[in-house]
Amino acid sequence: MAVGNTSFPDMPPLNGVRLGVAMAGIKKPNRRDMVVIELPETATVSGVFTQNAFCAAPVVVAKQHLEQCRADSRSPRFWLINTGNANAGTGEAGLRDARASCAELAKQAGVNEHDVLPFSTGVIGEPLPMERLLAGLAPALETLTCDGAAWQHAGQGILTTDTRAKGATVTLDIGDQAVTINGIAKGSGMIKPNMATMLGFVVTDAAIEAPLLDRLLRETVDRSFNCITVDSDTSTNDACMIAATGTGPQIVDEEQVSIFRHALQQVMTELAQAIIRDGEGATKLVTLQVGEANSRQEALDVAFTVAHSPLVKTALYASDANWGRILAAVGRAPVSDFDVNRVVIELGDVRLVEHGGRAAGYTEAAGSAVMAQSDITIRINLGRGEESATVWTSDLSHDYVSINADYRS
Amino acid sequence: MAVGNTSFPDMPPLNGVRLGVAMAGIKKPNRRDMVVIELPETATVSGVFTQNAFCAAPVVVAKQHLEQCRADSRSPRFWLINTGNANAGTGEAGLRDARASCAELAKQAGVNEHDVLPFSTGVIGEPLPMERLLAGLAPALETLTCDGAAWQHAGQGILTTDTRAKGATVTLDIGDQAVTINGIAKGSGMIKPNMATMLGFVVTDAAIEAPLLDRLLRETVDRSFNCITVDSDTSTNDACMIAATGTGPQIVDEEQVSIFRHALQQVMTELAQAIIRDGEGATKLVTLQVGEANSRQEALDVAFTVAHSPLVKTALYASDANWGRILAAVGRAPVSDFDVNRVVIELGDVRLVEHGGRAAGYTEAAGSAVMAQSDITIRINLGRGEESATVWTSDLSHDYVSINADYRS
Repeated sequence: MAVGNTSFPDMPPLNGVRLGVAMAGIKKPNRRDMVVIELPETATVSGVFTQNAFCAAPVVVAKQHLEQCRADSRSPRFWLINTGNANAGTGEAGLRDARASCAELAKQAGVNEHDVLPFSTGVIGEPLPMERLLAGLAPALETLTCDGAAWQHAGQGILTTDTRAKGATVTLDIGDQAVTINGIAKGSGMIKPNMATMLGFVVTDAAIEAPLLDRLLRETVDRSFNCITVDSDTSTNDACMIAATGTGPQIVDEEQVSIFRHALQQVMTELAQAIIRDGEGATKLVTLQVGEANSRQEALDVAFTVAHSPLVKTALYASDANWGRILAAVGRAPVSDFDVNRVVIELGDVRLVEHGGRAAGYTEAAGSAVMAQSDITIRINLGRGEESATVWTSDLSHDYVSINADYRS
Repeated sequence: MAVGNTSFPDMPPLNGVRLGVAMAGIKKPNRRDMVVIELPETATVSGVFTQNAFCAAPVVVAKQHLEQCRADSRSPRFWLINTGNANAGTGEAGLRDARASCAELAKQAGVNEHDVLPFSTGVIGEPLPMERLLAGLAPALETLTCDGAAWQHAGQGILTTDTRAKGATVTLDIGDQAVTINGIAKGSGMIKPNMATMLGFVVTDAAIEAPLLDRLLRETVDRSFNCITVDSDTSTNDACMIAATGTGPQIVDEEQVSIFRHALQQVMTELAQAIIRDGEGATKLVTLQVGEANSRQEALDVAFTVAHSPLVKTALYASDANWGRILAAVGRAPVSDFDVNRVVIELGDVRLVEHGGRAAGYTEAAGSAVMAQSDITIRINLGRGEESATVWTSDLSHDYVSINADYRS
């Protein structure tokens, strides 16, 4: 199941960027499960990674290799991604496997081992099937191409329980030069990213220096991937990467940064929402807007408390305007000195709660009409301050249970 | 669904304590939905209540009446409980209704309005059907009796989505005198109590002064009701009450307190586990024991993170030893400077995780054998300190979604 009909966008090619895809049979035969993304020497690369203490071997290695490249003033040249196996919870052997994959790709492509950053997604705790993985590298390299369809194939080649590939692209003008930002992402379950989501890859042809690229990535991820949740489970393998290839115009002054940030935020938000629309068992895309908070953190705390409530999520699934469950979730959020009489809760344009109880003009028919839609906005104003936050989530359906009770079998 | 076959225990009568039950038709006809528990004038009463900021009208009134009784050195004489309607999210009108219920019962029973403490459970946000509720008071008072079956009828009369009544009783010796502790509780969904659970009522014939009774209640609730979770949703109506009727021996010196606390803990823990066994859609009772933590709070944080993980809960439902999900949940728990290489995770007597990955001797067959049971213990040793905590939870099944998607319809 997935919410709405979103098709994969046409991705303009980016100078010096090529993508290759292989069917390595890592978990199942005859599916795209290995992706290689080649970047030019001129690229600047930045990444954010999961905060899960049990972070996966490829996350450890990708961070080390990125650091090494920065120390040597070189650009990483390849992102190597596999699905079907997360290489997480695999201890020392997992680290050896991740490094060996990078070394073999580097050898075949004629680059340094540190120029390859590895990413894995799939089941946790199984050893990486190294023979099949290594055998897939040559076919993946042979298919390297810069044509538009390659982005869609790459988008397919990183999926797990996802039902569709997720891409977003924006072209903007910096002065009189065009800049493009292309991105793909995957993720459907174990989605409550903390720093990044379960694999997002974004490339632009702009020229952006590393410290600025780091900052832009952090800022835009904080208001996109870090604001989505399917099931509150932060993965061991989250990573969101960005490369600025440097073949296009330079992003330097404040106005350019502002224009570029806005466009990058759009790509990040589209990808993040695409993950929620394709959340495991999702039948609804729910936007939680919390306003009038004392701090952004307080707004996020309230939004995530509601977004994680199984009772709110099952009511959404049932299209049941059971607003008492929203009220109960808001009331248990970690907010101190909470005066509930100032809280206003709205479902779409229908006011549900005010003065500590049901809003005066509320009717069940009005609430149900909003609940019947597949894109639903819940606004919660706390009446305490001026900060706000937006979080996106999906509902909790029978399919969510089926998908996760059957996933390994 | 519910886990295991537990029958309602034989409850010894307690001097001066009588219970009455009525079918008031508050939500549905022909079911026990109103309970009155009468306490003797000699009783000491203590209570703990939900920390939900949107706490229900009866919670506000019960706290006020209890305070008033304490200030006047009187004992509350009646607990008035209804199911079918939570009287929560009902604003000022809800407070008026709760007070009016107490006033009417007080009038019919010839006591002061403040001597009646009200409790409600059921759907949130609907006005209390006062006409039916008030009409039920007389029949409830007429059935007041101290015989054993009354406890079972009272246990039935406070249920919502529960599938069975929950009771526990212990008789112990203080010196050469017998002391009995009887308790009933309800709760099946919206269960992640914070201070108390969704309605627990415990009565003992011991004589215990108020400050000691307060302390014993807090201590034993902290290690029973406050350590269970079905769905992470803290209710608006949680309350756990205890009355020491004072007709039996006095609990005063340290040894007596210790013996009594142990027995009270047993009653509280049995009732708390009974709630999890009857958790919405539950097919498993899962005990999470977290050890070697730096603090009890840290141990609780890890235990609740695992207990709330939908991915762990669906794997438990599927009897799938998908230990990677447990590892991922432990890794995202809010613990600082977490060295995952020291973490040991065991499922029953099978070691799953050590040295940051799968334990050397682990086999899928051994893991699956434990998972097939209906009572499962997961031990997580953090290798950081000497503190520990135990939390009980249920799994996440198709029935959980059905129950909560259909609950109002």
